[in-house]
Amino acid sequence: MTSPATDITHLFSSIRQIAARVEETMRADLERVLVDNDPLLVEVLHYALLNGGKRIRPMLVVVSSRLCGRDDDDLYLLAAAFEYLHVATLVHDDVIDHADQRRGVDAVRKKYGMAAAILAGDWLHARSMHLISSLAGQQGLNIFCHATTSMVDGEFLQLRHVADITVTEEQYFAVILRKTARLISSTCEIGALFGGGTTQQVAGLATYGRKVGIAFQIIDDLLDYLGDKQATGKKVGNDFVEGKLTLPLIHALNRAGEEDKKTLLKCIKGHQDQPDACSTAKRLMNELDSFDFSRQRAGLEAKEGLSALTLFNRTRHGESLAVLEGLAGYVLTRDK
Amino acid sequence: MTSPATDITHLFSSIRQIAARVEETMRADLERVLVDNDPLLVEVLHYALLNGGKRIRPMLVVVSSRLCGRDDDDLYLLAAAFEYLHVATLVHDDVIDHADQRRGVDAVRKKYGMAAAILAGDWLHARSMHLISSLAGQQGLNIFCHATTSMVDGEFLQLRHVADITVTEEQYFAVILRKTARLISSTCEIGALFGGGTTQQVAGLATYGRKVGIAFQIIDDLLDYLGDKQATGKKVGNDFVEGKLTLPLIHALNRAGEEDKKTLLKCIKGHQDQPDACSTAKRLMNELDSFDFSRQRAGLEAKEGLSALTLFNRTRHGESLAVLEGLAGYVLTRDK
Repeated sequence: MTSPATDITHLFSSIRQIAARVEETMRADLERVLVDNDPLLVEVLHYALLNGGKRIRPMLVVVSSRLCGRDDDDLYLLAAAFEYLHVATLVHDDVIDHADQRRGVDAVRKKYGMAAAILAGDWLHARSMHLISSLAGQQGLNIFCHATTSMVDGEFLQLRHVADITVTEEQYFAVILRKTARLISSTCEIGALFGGGTTQQVAGLATYGRKVGIAFQIIDDLLDYLGDKQATGKKVGNDFVEGKLTLPLIHALNRAGEEDKKTLLKCIKGHQDQPDACSTAKRLMNELDSFDFSRQRAGLEAKEGLSALTLFNRTRHGESLAVLEGLAGYVLTRDK
Repeated sequence: MTSPATDITHLFSSIRQIAARVEETMRADLERVLVDNDPLLVEVLHYALLNGGKRIRPMLVVVSSRLCGRDDDDLYLLAAAFEYLHVATLVHDDVIDHADQRRGVDAVRKKYGMAAAILAGDWLHARSMHLISSLAGQQGLNIFCHATTSMVDGEFLQLRHVADITVTEEQYFAVILRKTARLISSTCEIGALFGGGTTQQVAGLATYGRKVGIAFQIIDDLLDYLGDKQATGKKVGNDFVEGKLTLPLIHALNRAGEEDKKTLLKCIKGHQDQPDACSTAKRLMNELDSFDFSRQRAGLEAKEGLSALTLFNRTRHGESLAVLEGLAGYVLTRDK
């Protein structure tokens, strides 16, 4: 039996191997499909895709399929398709947010301009769907399109609730389900389908993805307040300034006494005039245990996600299960 | 036998009927698929789609399928998918070009903002591929994705040649094939495949689409110089100011004597300082018959497109052939 330290080393090496193989597959796919294409398009796509991303979505595809019994070359192409879509949304998001930086380097829009960013995002979107349809068939594409159109719906829903102080926890969860969790769920679900999983296996992995996706977004929103600017590369309190009410603030508004609530509302409405509005709100959220509450809720979601995996045999699938458990743990403890 | 006047009336009424049925199908599809979606997303999609577009692409799908023997409800949904993609590209193009107007009303980006425009375009892109894959299968989606990724490639190629005075006719045709003609070709080809056409029928309709697509873009580029601002809604000489060398200018540069060529080059390089640069260039292109040359070339392409249709039986398919002939004629004679 190996020691825990060896296990972790083994886990990391297994994760790195998957990421490396997905990157190799992306390079080969671009080379094959971009023959005769404009050199600038080729450059932009390489720049956008091969920049040290964490490759979490491809990892989920690969492990989900392995758990259902399939691991071949095509699997890594399917995994690459999910990274294509993910990068397409990041590139478009950076245009929408006028972001200059992404993963510590210039965002595509900053380096190549808005036109190149929108067009390259569209290219990746099209290529992604093409690959998913080829490899996972009509059923796979249906699930995928439902998830991507949902994502747009979630963004609109979020825009609708900007500066809306009556937003409920339920509405918050409706947004993050659409914006984040459905796509992560579809990643696992399509991986399982591709792997030839049974109905229960496919459903179990979809549930894992949905729950871990929700946990991921809760922590992402938490890091917006508590993250280290150096680590996340984002300004602290960005959501607050943009009027996005996320879980800690919703919790604080519900829990606050009359006086604190008044102060919070003043902070939310007056954030542009008061430079300390965000730090005041942060102090109150801290006092009202809203950050702990959010973290606990994320932990609960991740735990529920993991229990959806009990149907897989631990002896046979120890390594794959360890990756999914490790990922759930990473989602909860990450600092960027 | 009917008189030509009756024929034309009949043709218009047949075209209007197709457009109306496609619009009805789009409304029903949005209603079905947007249940529980954010009301603003619903509003933006309706605004973008139902604004009096000419519905040329849906028309091509419907007629191509009819020529191959199929005309049912699903055909109009397939046709709608092509309009979704077309509108997605227009909405994204308007973001790229900072355009305020589209078809005489506010562009989506102007009315709802850039975020809504990019996201709604992505939604339409995803929905379009979903429908095409469901209705025209893997083969249809392959053709479609090749055409959409080509479109992006064409835009990049065009960016590369901005202010490039050495650009050749061949390079110009390579750009418009990718940017415009492949998608129109795929529209006819997928319509024919859906209709159960033979290999020859599918190839014939694809050729028609490619040739008419090339003619369309040549005339589009011509209208950039000669169009009535009121009719096209665009500034005259836009391409010239942006440094896009289209067919008339390439022709003029090739044909001009030493003196005229010098003047043209001065106009192209100095267009920002000289307010009359575009009109001087226009005068020279006119004198060098470059506009006539372009129009003739477009006419030739359209004619070749029509000869690809001789394999269809005129007695049986008179009405469908009349629509395709009418469309080729419209492409050549339109003033907006």
